[in-house]
Amino acid sequence: MDGFTLSLNARVLPIKAGKPVAILHEDVARELGIMPLDRVEIKNPKTKKSLIAIIDVTHSLVSREEIGLFEDILHALKVKGECTLKVRAVERPKSVEYIKKKILGKALTASEIRTIVRDLDQNRLSDVEAGAFMSAVYIRGYNMAETVAMTKALIENGKRIHFDVEPIVDKHSIGGINGRATMIIVPIVASAGLYIPKTSSRSITSAAGTADAMEVLANVCLQPEEIKEITERIGGVIAWGGALNLAPVDEKIIKIEYPLSLNPQGQIIASVLAKKASVGSQYVVIDIPIGKGLKIENKSEAEMLAGRFLAVGRKLGIHIEAVITDGTMPSGPAFGPALEARHVMRILEGKCFDNLAQKSCELSGVLFELVGKAKQGRGFELAKKILRSGKALKKMKQIIKAQQGNIFSSKDIELAQYKAGICAKKEGEIARIDVRRLTNIARAAGAPYDKKAGVLLHVDVGDSIKKGAVLYEIFAENKRKLASAMKEAKRNNGIELSRIIIKKIF
Amino acid sequence: MDGFTLSLNARVLPIKAGKPVAILHEDVARELGIMPLDRVEIKNPKTKKSLIAIIDVTHSLVSREEIGLFEDILHALKVKGECTLKVRAVERPKSVEYIKKKILGKALTASEIRTIVRDLDQNRLSDVEAGAFMSAVYIRGYNMAETVAMTKALIENGKRIHFDVEPIVDKHSIGGINGRATMIIVPIVASAGLYIPKTSSRSITSAAGTADAMEVLANVCLQPEEIKEITERIGGVIAWGGALNLAPVDEKIIKIEYPLSLNPQGQIIASVLAKKASVGSQYVVIDIPIGKGLKIENKSEAEMLAGRFLAVGRKLGIHIEAVITDGTMPSGPAFGPALEARHVMRILEGKCFDNLAQKSCELSGVLFELVGKAKQGRGFELAKKILRSGKALKKMKQIIKAQQGNIFSSKDIELAQYKAGICAKKEGEIARIDVRRLTNIARAAGAPYDKKAGVLLHVDVGDSIKKGAVLYEIFAENKRKLASAMKEAKRNNGIELSRIIIKKIF
Repeated sequence: MDGFTLSLNARVLPIKAGKPVAILHEDVARELGIMPLDRVEIKNPKTKKSLIAIIDVTHSLVSREEIGLFEDILHALKVKGECTLKVRAVERPKSVEYIKKKILGKALTASEIRTIVRDLDQNRLSDVEAGAFMSAVYIRGYNMAETVAMTKALIENGKRIHFDVEPIVDKHSIGGINGRATMIIVPIVASAGLYIPKTSSRSITSAAGTADAMEVLANVCLQPEEIKEITERIGGVIAWGGALNLAPVDEKIIKIEYPLSLNPQGQIIASVLAKKASVGSQYVVIDIPIGKGLKIENKSEAEMLAGRFLAVGRKLGIHIEAVITDGTMPSGPAFGPALEARHVMRILEGKCFDNLAQKSCELSGVLFELVGKAKQGRGFELAKKILRSGKALKKMKQIIKAQQGNIFSSKDIELAQYKAGICAKKEGEIARIDVRRLTNIARAAGAPYDKKAGVLLHVDVGDSIKKGAVLYEIFAENKRKLASAMKEAKRNNGIELSRIIIKKIF
Repeated sequence: MDGFTLSLNARVLPIKAGKPVAILHEDVARELGIMPLDRVEIKNPKTKKSLIAIIDVTHSLVSREEIGLFEDILHALKVKGECTLKVRAVERPKSVEYIKKKILGKALTASEIRTIVRDLDQNRLSDVEAGAFMSAVYIRGYNMAETVAMTKALIENGKRIHFDVEPIVDKHSIGGINGRATMIIVPIVASAGLYIPKTSSRSITSAAGTADAMEVLANVCLQPEEIKEITERIGGVIAWGGALNLAPVDEKIIKIEYPLSLNPQGQIIASVLAKKASVGSQYVVIDIPIGKGLKIENKSEAEMLAGRFLAVGRKLGIHIEAVITDGTMPSGPAFGPALEARHVMRILEGKCFDNLAQKSCELSGVLFELVGKAKQGRGFELAKKILRSGKALKKMKQIIKAQQGNIFSSKDIELAQYKAGICAKKEGEIARIDVRRLTNIARAAGAPYDKKAGVLLHVDVGDSIKKGAVLYEIFAENKRKLASAMKEAKRNNGIELSRIIIKKIF
């Protein structure tokens, strides 16, 4: 059908869609021989500009003489005032064919995967096609070659940062919930002379992401040049990845995966390693927390994922070590950006050494051994020594300063002014602390959007508590949110006591 | 997260979207704890109206104090002038969970399928979710119970027509290309005292659909009451299904399936039988044309589909007979609405009896035998007798009149005024006529939108032709389209001659 052209008047639909969608009267679509979600080429004869748009049809919004276009398309076509555009049906992009191939269960070639990633990048695929693709990838899976190809395609489609120093190391956690080990690992590792340009995400479903917590102390919206400069000068940086345009298609894929929680292993690996490779990482430790309700639920799944990470890393020239951790236990007592940042600073200041500090030293140790900075089995010791010596704290202060921050001590971190304690209703021994539940209470209190809001645990698993003892405090920036979080906590406080007698029969 | 409410100012985005999509600033979405494609409930405190919308986020289109809404949503919320709306995150609809279940390869219950169909009907699913669903259905398939449940759910969600006469019979072809056997079968069958309220589609990719061809003779946009009245009075009707709201969700599903040509067998069966059951069909003959490039490519696939049609029909109380036909041969010489309508009338007038007439009598015969109107093996004979007697022509004239038409003879059908013959470049015997190729030439000439345009074959497979003999004529409504079709025909005329010498070696 290529070649048959209609002349239609541009009709401005005064919103920005962010996607190249055009609207035709259904009779006109029929005349062009196209269905909704087919594509047309739209050409502005005056400016010689043209683009491909996906069609939606209407029987009322535009007339038979018109084509409805959102502002962003008009801008791209350089349309000003009244304007007649040339419209013709064009073939679907090749990637639609490749998506069908994946649906049929056939492996894709590297070039086919590159084409799909490019078309996702340029918004050439409709949401229906994108959804069908992720569903098929989830069901059919990627083989090793496809995973490597997807990783490389994601890297090629984004910015990269090249460093003039080495070794570049990194750490990534697959869906951990609280704690912010990253903010402890980065200064420890940088203190030892390694370079760690860490990019992190903001939270969507937890009480804080690393970028949210670091933002309490310093600016995290850094440009690639700043990341390069700070890393090379100080050894470490903790930035928000969202501002950097590293592997931007990955963000689009995550958006497609999100509604149905489609997290195919191959796509997780490509997503993580593309971001690491984009900042030139040579040595990476991957933390895979497991537990019910987490991205990875059981050990055998985690082991399979770990093995695939190593294999794909090898193909990309990245040395990887993966560790499986228990994701159901809280990592430290804090839930919420300011609370988590404060706890991190307290650990760096040597004021406590808990399971979060332990985990951070273990993961730093893995990196030290991987790079050859410590002998096998001695990495943890080195990390702990650096933490204890105060060098990590000093490094963290340098990082905060380099990132234009002005809070250098746990004492200077403000918490929300409204607070309330949640107390034990009976005595007993704490058997389990429900991380997901505390997260929801912290979120009801306003975290992560309200940085000073959240939950601070006063107890730990194994503690014996008396009736009336404070289990945790809730912090909120206003009374309404405090009440809302209290209500959540009263419904289910997330603290389970050991029961000797499970049921009485009489 | 249910329960946390923000107050936002309504910002009108002056277009109709046809879908409940609302736009939030990305910071506000974050504050509500939602991602793009999550849902919110929007309430207008003044009018007490509320609805669920799918969220898209922006960082520029609306401010942090606003929610952007399309006109149709504002209308539903009864928003007038400046207005503050209450917005809160809500859970995804249950059907998203069921879609994930299908992706994971588990069978859905009847109630889960009903919920998905209802949510599709009410536009509660995003395109990503809908695309993921159809991809999963294609890969995982429906079992028998799921197919029956999908059929019933499609029926329940649409209008139904109840007739006070019987037997109600019907005929359906899965993706046949040219010919319009329906327009011959309906009057034959109605002449014998059966009732056949046929609803047909317009063409998307062929040169004419039955509704397009019938529209040359009469009005096809009938209301359900008209279909009932005409069927009960005259025995047959040939209407456009699109105007009737029978199984409307099926139209949405077809739209989702279309871009990736996802035609899972279970969904084809549900789609066809829901429409038949909606008009109360008791006896149905299903024509399954097979051939390369058609919906069903080979015989074993067709046999499997046929068997499933029969089994599902049994569960719905519909008597079905399926026939497998050769879909690669042209059914009659005409491609295009007026040409096909004219050829149908010529057959009814007794002016010719070709393979289209033969097919129509065979399919009518199957219906006669299915209903018990003819003994086994005698249906074809009865159909041919009715056709030869002129009764079918008389019935067709009654149907045309009842549908407010005024063309009752093949001679009164106008063809496009610009025409040209395509001639043989050498002599030989015709081995194959490429139906898809002739369709494309007819479409380049303007069919089906230009009703009088198309292609009329002068030759048939097996004919011996001389160099220069006219193979077919092209009809178009203007010179430009004629030239465009001629160009297509010159590139490849679609007529293959037998070759004795395949290659000369010297």
